[in-house]
Order: sequence, then C-alpha cells, then structure tokens
Amino acid sequence: MLFHVRMDVTIPPGLDVTDRVAAEKARALELQRAGVWVHLWRIVGRYSNFSVFDVASNDELHGILSALPLYPFMRIEITPLATHPSELAAQ
Amino acid sequence: MLFHVRMDVTIPPGLDVTDRVAAEKARALELQRAGVWVHLWRIVGRYSNFSVFDVASNDELHGILSALPLYPFMRIEITPLATHPSELAAQ
Amino acid sequence: MLFHVRMDVTIPPGLDVTDRVAAEKARALELQRAGVWVHLWRIVGRYSNFSVFDVASNDELHGILSALPLYPFMRIEITPLATHPSELAAQ
Amino acid sequence: MLFHVRMDVTIPPGLDVTDRVAAEKARALELQRAGVWVHLWRIVGRYSNFSVFDVASNDELHGILSALPLYPFMRIEITPLATHPSELAAQ
Amino acid sequence: MLFHVRMDVTIPPGLDVTDRVAAEKARALELQRAGVWVHLWRIVGRYSNFSVFDVASNDELHGILSALPLYPFMRIEITPLATHPSELAAQ
Amino acid sequence: MLFHVRMDVTIPPGLDVTDRVAAEKARALELQRAGVWVHLWRIVGRYSNFSVFDVASNDELHGILSALPLYPFMRIEITPLATHPSELAAQ
Amino acid sequence: MLFHVRMDVTIPPGLDVTDRVAAEKARALELQRAGVWVHLWRIVGRYSNFSVFDVASNDELHGILSALPLYPFMRIEITPLATHPSELAAQ
Amino acid sequence: MLFHVRMDVTIPPGLDVTDRVAAEKARALELQRAGVWVHLWRIVGRYSNFSVFDVASNDELHGILSALPLYPFMRIEITPLATHPSELAAQ
Amino acid sequence: MLFHVRMDVTIPPGLDVTDRVAAEKARALELQRAGVWVHLWRIVGRYSNFSVFDVASNDELHGILSALPLYPFMRIEITPLATHPSELAAQ
Amino acid sequence: MLFHVRMDVTIPPGLDVTDRVAAEKARALELQRAGVWVHLWRIVGRYSNFSVFDVASNDELHGILSALPLYPFMRIEITPLATHPSELAAQ
Repeated sequence: MLFHVRMDVTIPPGLDVTDRVAAEKARALELQRAGVWVHLWRIVGRYSNFSVFDVASNDELHGILSALPLYPFMRIEITPLATHPSELAAQ
Repeated sequence: MLFHVRMDVTIPPGLDVTDRVAAEKARALELQRAGVWVHLWRIVGRYSNFSVFDVASNDELHGILSALPLYPFMRIEITPLATHPSELAAQ
Repeated sequence: MLFHVRMDVTIPPGLDVTDRVAAEKARALELQRAGVWVHLWRIVGRYSNFSVFDVASNDELHGILSALPLYPFMRIEITPLATHPSELAAQ
Repeated sequence: MLFHVRMDVTIPPGLDVTDRVAAEKARALELQRAGVWVHLWRIVGRYSNFSVFDVASNDELHGILSALPLYPFMRIEITPLATHPSELAAQ
Repeated sequence: MLFHVRMDVTIPPGLDVTDRVAAEKARALELQRAGVWVHLWRIVGRYSNFSVFDVASNDELHGILSALPLYPFMRIEITPLATHPSELAAQ
Repeated sequence: MLFHVRMDVTIPPGLDVTDRVAAEKARALELQRAGVWVHLWRIVGRYSNFSVFDVASNDELHGILSALPLYPFMRIEITPLATHPSELAAQ
Repeated sequence: MLFHVRMDVTIPPGLDVTDRVAAEKARALELQRAGVWVHLWRIVGRYSNFSVFDVASNDELHGILSALPLYPFMRIEITPLATHPSELAAQ
Repeated sequence: MLFHVRMDVTIPPGLDVTDRVAAEKARALELQRAGVWVHLWRIVGRYSNFSVFDVASNDELHGILSALPLYPFMRIEITPLATHPSELAAQ
Repeated sequence: MLFHVRMDVTIPPGLDVTDRVAAEKARALELQRAGVWVHLWRIVGRYSNFSVFDVASNDELHGILSALPLYPFMRIEITPLATHPSELAAQ
Repeated sequence: MLFHVRMDVTIPPGLDVTDRVAAEKARALELQRAGVWVHLWRIVGRYSNFSVFDVASNDELHGILSALPLYPFMRIEITPLATHPSELAAQ
C-alpha cells in the first residue's frame, strides 16, 4: 500500500547533527533495499524530500517514520495513494 | 530530468467530458509508454493525481501538460526534483 | 486500518439532490452496518462530517468514497490514523 | 456532549519532558476509563492526535484540557459535534 | 453554555431573498426573546455578524442554526466559550 | 462604540509572568467595573479570549489595550461592530 | 476617528454596471467634499482601493459603506487607526 | 509617486531597543518634514503602522526603508498606489 | 523603474476570447518593442506569466496594465524592484 | 533552461555573517559573469530577491543554490519558466 510523504527538515541553529545525518542516510538506504522506501527525491532548493513508502499498514508507516534519526527535526505530510485508472501497469 | 506534478481536476457542473476523459486516458498511457510520464498515482478521495515526469526541458514539460485533453479543467502544481544524496540508485 | 475523513458537501444552487441524499443515507447505513464506516459525526453549523473508516487498503478506501452518491459534491480530506501509545485498548 | 479535538504537541528543544509525558499518559488513561476521553488516535507522522471528548459543558472541557500535563506545549483545535442524521445509532 | 458564532452571508446574484430575510429577522428576534441568541452584532462593512448563543447542547445549537431561513447561504464558524477567570461575574 | 477583540497570549518559555498575570486580572476587573471591557470569554482549549470593548474612540481603545500588563505577549485582532438591524434592543 | 478601508470590487461577468459606477463616483466625490472619505488611492493592477474614512462612529461607517452603489460587489476590510506617537502633527 | 507601506515591528524578547526607538522617531519626523513620509497611522492593538511614502523611485524607497533604525525588526509590505479616477483632487 | 508582475488568467467557461487573445499578443509585442515590458516568461503548467515592466511611474504602470485586452480576466500581483547590491551591472 | 527563484534571507539575531555576506556577493558576481544567474533584483523593503537562473538541469540548479554561502539562512521558492508565445524574441 503506497503513501506519498513529504519531509521538511529544520535543524535548530548551532546543533551538531552530523551523526544523525549519517544514521539517517544509513537507515534510508536500508529501507530502500527492503522495498519499503520505494522513491526518494530531493526538492530543489530545499532541505526537503518527496518520498513514496510501500507499507502494510498505517501503524507500520508511523513506526518507521517516527524512528528515523532526523524525525525530531522533520515536519511530515502524508497522502494516501490509490491505483490510478490510467496507470499503465493497471491496464 | 524529473518534475513532481500535482494535478487537481474540476469539471464545471453539467458539462459532458466523456470524450475528453477517454482522450486523457489514451494520452496518459501513450506518455507512460514513451517513458515521459514515469509515475501516476490517484490521491485517495480526490479527482487529483501525483505524477512524476521525465523531460528534457521546461519547454517540453509545458508543451506536454498544456496539450492534455483535461488541461483546461486542471490546476497544476510543479516541483523540480533533484537526485537525493541518500537515494539507493545514486550510491 | 483506520482513516480519519472530513467531508464538506456543497450542492450547486438550484440542483435537486433529494434522491442522492436518500441514496447517500442508505449507503452510509449499509457501510456502518458492515463495520467499514465506524464513526460519523455532524460538524455543528456545517453541511460537513467527521468520520472514521476501517478499511483493508487505500484502494478500498478510494473505491468506497468515490462511489458515494454525494461524492461529486464533496471535498474530502483524509488523515491516516495509527494506534496511540496512550490509548486504553492498546495497554 | 461530544467534541472533536486535535492536539499538536511541540516540545521546546533541549527540554526534558519525560515526567510530563508519563503524567500525560496516566491522565489520558484515567480520562478514558472515566468515559470522558472517548477516542484517541495518533496522526501518522506527527506528534499529534485526533480525539473525541464526552463532557457535560464547555467549562468542563476547558478545565480538563488546560490541566493536561503537556497542555503548555499543545496547540488545540476544537470542533463541536452533533448527531448525524445518517448515524446508525440514531435510526 | 455559550458559543461564539460568526455568520457570513452570501446571496447568489439574481436571487430574490426578501422573504427569507424577513423570516430570518423574525426568527432572530424570537430566539433573542427566548434567551438563546444572547448577542448579535453586525461586522462593519460586511454582510456578517458575530453572535453568542446560549444553548443546552451541541445538538440544540446545530438544530437552531441549520433551521435559520438564511442558513443555505451562510458560512458559519463556531467557537466554544468557557468562563474566563478574570470575568467580573465569576469573582 | 463597540469593538470585538480577540487576544491570543503567548508567554516565552522560562519567563515568570506571575506578577503580570495578577496585574492583568486586576486591570481586567477594573475595566469591566468601568463599563469599558463589557464582555470577556475564554476560548476553550486556548490561552485566548474573545472580548467586547465599549470605548469613545480608536485612540482610547489603543491606549487601553497597549497598556495591558500582558500586552507585550499578546496578538490582538480587532473588528469594529455596528448595531445589527435584527438586534432585539434596536427594535 | 479614522479607519483604514480596503475595497476589492468584483463585477459578475455579463452584468452592466455603468450606472452603478457613475453613481459610485458621484457618491465618492460627495463624501470626499464632506470630509468623510479623506483619502482614496487606486491599488496598481487591481480593481481595488485603499481609503481612509473619518467618521464619528462605527455605525456611521457601516451606514456609509453599505449604502455605496457598488457595495453588493465589494469585499471590504476595515482597520481602526490611532494617532501614531511619531506622527508630525501629534508633536 | 505614492506607495502604501505596512510595517509590523517585532522586538526579540530581552533586547533593549530604547535608543533605536528614539532614533526611529527622530528619523520619522525628519522624513515627514521632508514630505517623503506623507502619512503615518498606528494600527489599533498592534506594534504596526500603515504609512504612505512619496518618493521618486523604487530605489529611493528601498534606501529609505532599509536605513530605518528599526528596519532589522520590521516586516514590511509595499503596495504601489495610482491616482484613483474618483479622487476629488484628480477631477 | 522596474516592477515584477505576475499575471494569472482565468477565462470564464464558454466565453470566446480569440479576439482578445490576439489583441493581447499584439499589445504585448508592441510594449516589448517599446522597452516597457522588458521580460515575459510563461509559468510552466499555468495560464500565467512572470513579467518585468520598466515604467516611469505607478500611474503609467496601472494605465498600461488596466488597458490590456485580457485585463478583465487577470489577477495581477505587483512587486516593486530595486537595484541589488550584488548585481553585476551595478558594480 | 530558465528558473524563477525567490530567496528570502533570515539571519538569526546576534549572529555575525559579515564573511558569509561578502562570500555570497563574490559568488553571485561569479555566477552572473558565467551566465548562470541571469537576473538579480532586490525586493523593495525586504532582505529578499527575485532571480532568474539559466541551468542545464534540476541537479545543477540544486547544486548551485545549496552551495551558496547564505543558503542555510534562505527560504527558496522555485518556479520553472517556459518560453511565452508572446515573447518578442520567440517570434
């Protein structure tokens, strides 16, 4: 089940988040390899991304997002996705 | 070059758009087969979609969008996408 | 899997929707009996409701909502819900 | 009398609220057992909840909310609810 | 129990609402005499009012508002009120 | 001359405003006794109020508001009120 | 007593308002000569104006505005003005 | 050439701006005497003003505003003004 | 003197504006040749443009814009521009 | 390929950014000389600019913007531009 996710990151000034950023990247790669974080794009000019997650439930999605290393500094917006009737793969 | 596109469709009440909807679907399939309209998802509960387009230029993107059969009834929001440093394919 | 849904209904002036309203009510009762539309409250002073749906997938939710008799006149906003750690039933 | 309540929590960076969070959970459970806090859901991806309260008056609702341990860090939005004419229990 | 209510009226152009306006006024006076519609002020420069209602429940409030003759042309915003600790009458 | 006033109070974290709050209450009572601050209601779930002031001029209103002990921490929104043609007292 | 007023005019398409526009202009000149409508500026690129009115009360202001020939097509926003401590005339 | 200017001032808590406020007042008086700052009104209930400036160019306006002593604490909104066809002085 | 202008065009459904569109294009070319409309870009996916105008005064700008053939169908937003201290041509 | 870019700069109070500002200016001049930063205008009354960039791809644009010395203090909004059919150079 697919969810469209937008994450906007705001680091408080003066805070060193080098370790968190590295951990975030490691976790993002792990979730991509696992087929859960299926798309990840940088929004040009922003410390933000558009992502698509493939999860079995809302609880799983919240569990994954709220455990991300940068979660305390993120504003997250979630949109549930359905199959589009004009999608090629759905024909 | 990837662009994130949100399309919200509003059909004026009383207007028959059966032909346009069919033409829109045909064109969407054609553009997906051509590798230009690379993702197309329905937003749950809305006559809207999130899409990703892969085009060579802004002019090409505007040409494609403004020629869509339902374009006169769409509100379109475009976000340029860049490669994310944590994207698996970019490692 | 639970989703919070807000529906705002706007009937174009001069349109007779008596049949649709009756069909909507019948369908709402049917979905409540089926355990899918688990909560339904009127927002005071508005032709709007807050609802909670229990569905197996995003596709099922979109299918149900987009087939409601009053769907063409609704603006729908959806929020995925997860189990709250302080919810009594989850202890 | 039912009220729909949305609570968004923002903890100032660097503040230790472990005790408050524990007290908040205890109080939430107590109010649920008392039949006052009748629904409590986590909003996916946010430190927020959608809740429904059943109280005898506006004064009681304000008294309860403003005494919550995390109240100083909450932004609260309240919507009065009425019985929906299509609600199953109201037939 | 007091509720703050803002009503914004928009009459579709070309519609004759003389009767409804007269009925609305008669009903407003009746509700004021009954002690239900306790305050009613015109917002300067707008076809709008700020009002305060004193009702026993949310259901009563919705019943009253949704039966107003101009209700189909109103946008209504409701805010529950509580006793203020600095209110003179509450000392 | 009546003005509708909404005050939203935000105290910076860590600041002790006990004295100001006491002074604010004393001043609010004084202005109510003087017939200037004619209504004062708490907005449920917020550190906010809806008020109505009766003053002789805009200058008097600004003078009173800007001298309130909590003024530096308030966001104030003012709406001029006129007599409503359906107000009972105006018949 | 001064009030800052913004008026945005929207004429429904197809409506002939030639007479109303002429009457509006005549009334505007009359109110300027009377010293009531003390400033009147066109907002560049809009069918809108910023104005300042000098009236004795809120009721007078509402009476004047709601009797303007183009009032049914205006959206009006009002801001009460006070003497500024740095105003030259106030020294 | 006239410009409508709104200035909203926000002083960071704990900062002593006594000198800046005095310098701002001196500069405001100077610009009013020079016929550049032609109107200056306090917005009731806010640390804000509505002003009108008469300058020869956009560059002159930016030069004047950005050199104001309180400029670092202001949010400024500018609207170009044109002669209104119903303005008395323009007849 | 430069002004940044955004124009959003909305044609009422069913209206034939072929002549106006042709006249608008002719006028746009004329103003570009005259060095007044110095930049004109299409916003991708919208019936909108970002433009820059070089005019001697606000009155001239309003005169030009309000005489455009499509002006009745435009929403126009204007931002005055000043020389940037880092602009190459200003060094 | 052209992109319209708005940058709003907010320096945290008390931070010395003299070096960054100088570096930003040097970089801006360099990018202008290289034909990448093709327009740069100050927004009157703001620490903001409207710019136009000419780049080969979204990735190049993000690389350039995110490496600007003041990038950590900027809020950036990007709009892809296409050739306008009424642009003089496109005839």
